[in-house]
Amino acid sequence: MAMKALVTGFDAFGGDKVNPSSAAIGRLKRRISGLVIHTAVLPTSYARSAITLRGAIHEARPDIVLCVGQAGGRRELSLERVAINIQDARIRDNDGKQPIDRPVVRGGPAAYFTSLPIKACVAELRRAGLPAAVSNSAGTFVCNHVFYALMDMAGRHGLAFRGGFLHIPYLPEQAARLGDQPSMSLDDIVRAIEIVLAVSAARSEDLHTAEGRIS
Amino acid sequence: MAMKALVTGFDAFGGDKVNPSSAAIGRLKRRISGLVIHTAVLPTSYARSAITLRGAIHEARPDIVLCVGQAGGRRELSLERVAINIQDARIRDNDGKQPIDRPVVRGGPAAYFTSLPIKACVAELRRAGLPAAVSNSAGTFVCNHVFYALMDMAGRHGLAFRGGFLHIPYLPEQAARLGDQPSMSLDDIVRAIEIVLAVSAARSEDLHTAEGRIS
Amino acid sequence: MAMKALVTGFDAFGGDKVNPSSAAIGRLKRRISGLVIHTAVLPTSYARSAITLRGAIHEARPDIVLCVGQAGGRRELSLERVAINIQDARIRDNDGKQPIDRPVVRGGPAAYFTSLPIKACVAELRRAGLPAAVSNSAGTFVCNHVFYALMDMAGRHGLAFRGGFLHIPYLPEQAARLGDQPSMSLDDIVRAIEIVLAVSAARSEDLHTAEGRIS
Amino acid sequence: MAMKALVTGFDAFGGDKVNPSSAAIGRLKRRISGLVIHTAVLPTSYARSAITLRGAIHEARPDIVLCVGQAGGRRELSLERVAINIQDARIRDNDGKQPIDRPVVRGGPAAYFTSLPIKACVAELRRAGLPAAVSNSAGTFVCNHVFYALMDMAGRHGLAFRGGFLHIPYLPEQAARLGDQPSMSLDDIVRAIEIVLAVSAARSEDLHTAEGRIS
Repeated sequence: MAMKALVTGFDAFGGDKVNPSSAAIGRLKRRISGLVIHTAVLPTSYARSAITLRGAIHEARPDIVLCVGQAGGRRELSLERVAINIQDARIRDNDGKQPIDRPVVRGGPAAYFTSLPIKACVAELRRAGLPAAVSNSAGTFVCNHVFYALMDMAGRHGLAFRGGFLHIPYLPEQAARLGDQPSMSLDDIVRAIEIVLAVSAARSEDLHTAEGRIS
Repeated sequence: MAMKALVTGFDAFGGDKVNPSSAAIGRLKRRISGLVIHTAVLPTSYARSAITLRGAIHEARPDIVLCVGQAGGRRELSLERVAINIQDARIRDNDGKQPIDRPVVRGGPAAYFTSLPIKACVAELRRAGLPAAVSNSAGTFVCNHVFYALMDMAGRHGLAFRGGFLHIPYLPEQAARLGDQPSMSLDDIVRAIEIVLAVSAARSEDLHTAEGRIS
Repeated sequence: MAMKALVTGFDAFGGDKVNPSSAAIGRLKRRISGLVIHTAVLPTSYARSAITLRGAIHEARPDIVLCVGQAGGRRELSLERVAINIQDARIRDNDGKQPIDRPVVRGGPAAYFTSLPIKACVAELRRAGLPAAVSNSAGTFVCNHVFYALMDMAGRHGLAFRGGFLHIPYLPEQAARLGDQPSMSLDDIVRAIEIVLAVSAARSEDLHTAEGRIS
Repeated sequence: MAMKALVTGFDAFGGDKVNPSSAAIGRLKRRISGLVIHTAVLPTSYARSAITLRGAIHEARPDIVLCVGQAGGRRELSLERVAINIQDARIRDNDGKQPIDRPVVRGGPAAYFTSLPIKACVAELRRAGLPAAVSNSAGTFVCNHVFYALMDMAGRHGLAFRGGFLHIPYLPEQAARLGDQPSMSLDDIVRAIEIVLAVSAARSEDLHTAEGRIS
């Protein structure tokens, strides 16, 4: 039977009208390297995002879950290494909530590492001409919250999927409005998501390459 | 009779294998908003670039000349406001030459302003979803040299064209090799050049909008 | 009896002749807000740094441990929130070792949070005119390694200290050599360390302020 | 008879309460390397700054004029190479005026080059452990306006001084308020100004070193 992947994006937040993550997943092919692709758009809400994610996972029963979110200001595609058990909101979420220093999961471990082969993904993205890097922080807003909740479902609730998080730059039209911000075209973002899914389907062991940061 | 535009790019330099400026002009349409498009690739050489440019101008007899060059590290399309009469090379050019603090044109004025409607171009690029800005320095390498030589041909030798310079970011594949650099897709760069040409053909007076910088 | 603090820096690495962290701790006062100050310089070595740190802790028996390290490229003082259980070296350490994706502590938790009041420190640093922020990643080099090892000593080995990590920018003389890098004066760095120690001695509960990051 | 230097700063603008340039010149020594130092604070006003400057020059009759201004966001001390004949204000000046694309001096040349030995200054600043660079744009706000007006006084009105412009980063206390901005201590800025003056007094010919920029 074919492997399945669930790919999620977020709705717009912080005054933006568009979120490149949901724009991108709306353009994914139905099948990528033998994977059957399911998608879901998560609300940019601490209270509701993980519930929506859990529902989508229970419905799709995926082998791989890739959550995608916008990282405004980054120049490259970022494969996130680790999710931390903290909510610390610099701005209000789409419910008007701004939690400070609260855990994503009360009593949960301090962090989870991704179970996707992020270094192999980075290598393949670069080979395809797309700038990419491993990131060691997904922030403390709803992206990190969803990433932590995702890995907690796999880690503690024994759901048999591998999971990870991809942060993407602004779209050019966002940068055109904001001024002096790096961006990436939607075509390239869609292509990047498909590469991450294909690499994740093809291999479970990661590459042994140096992609760390000094600080 | 149809108006004509000459659009130039540069060959690769500084160890790169590609220069996005020549890649982009190779993909321009033959006609853009009624303009007949001529193109030329200039050598990244202080000694030879302006000669090649002059030859191309004498051959094409253009109404508009747009020179395009790579500005590695910039996040946006940059419409250059001013060319200065200096050569100060941080690296060697493609002839192995590295002039320091020499004039582009001995006895020439300290600077020339562009004669293209750069603020109208910036406004139209943004409207098309492409990040863009006015820049007040084209550097001191071969880009500025060519831009100065171009404006000197119009200014002192009375050639009847309007001229300007567009700096473009790295391509994604360059950023993928270099790491942590902003980039722009070739499709968007080509689209940007066509917009700059169309706006330049349509209007000679510029917009009266604030696009200055504090420092 | 007076409270004691241990403050550590690192020796130079990566081709630098100086490490601002050890330069700074060499200039600390002996007593800060009632704290008796002990210092130690740690080798920039995965194999030896934590051993040296453990020895210094056993000798000084501190109430507070603040490890300080250089974060080249950062513009602000960074109070680190979390240490992760990974070694992923982009460059060789001072023993010539470059571990990739190995744990700091085999079987240890994925991460530890700091036990210093980092938001109160950030607030007080800003009040003193020093730019500061909470950071969510100490990287994956020896700084993070030491920070994780430190919190593991407190967390699993029951040593009764509170611990944290402060990342500091380049010194101006480093930036003068490197070119186009942000920096901070040694005087300001010394002052910052003293403020972090004073705030940490004065309060164990942190401030409830938003210092998170979106990504 | 002793040589004289006039050093100017600006008053605060754009909502800031302090301008590091006037803070710094208030702390200069009265004599620097044999130069007698005069100072003046210029209003951040297109209409009034050059008049105040002209008055100070006529009073002090200096051999050297160094204008100093804040370049928020820069990481290094910047010795400006060129002033351009344009006013293009991104924000209002302290008179509430925001000129767009108007000349500093009607009928004046497009630009003036500095007559200070900026590369020798950069070299000496670096030797003193202070990060510094040659800049090819002083922007289009009041800093460039004053720099152009200064060089125009020397160039067209035959006043026998050499002149230049130094852009300085934010102070740490400004960066502490603004967040994630590079800064430089006031002590280092004062030291930098004194070095620029000493080098300018000691030599009129500049060094023949590569300090150009590609773009």
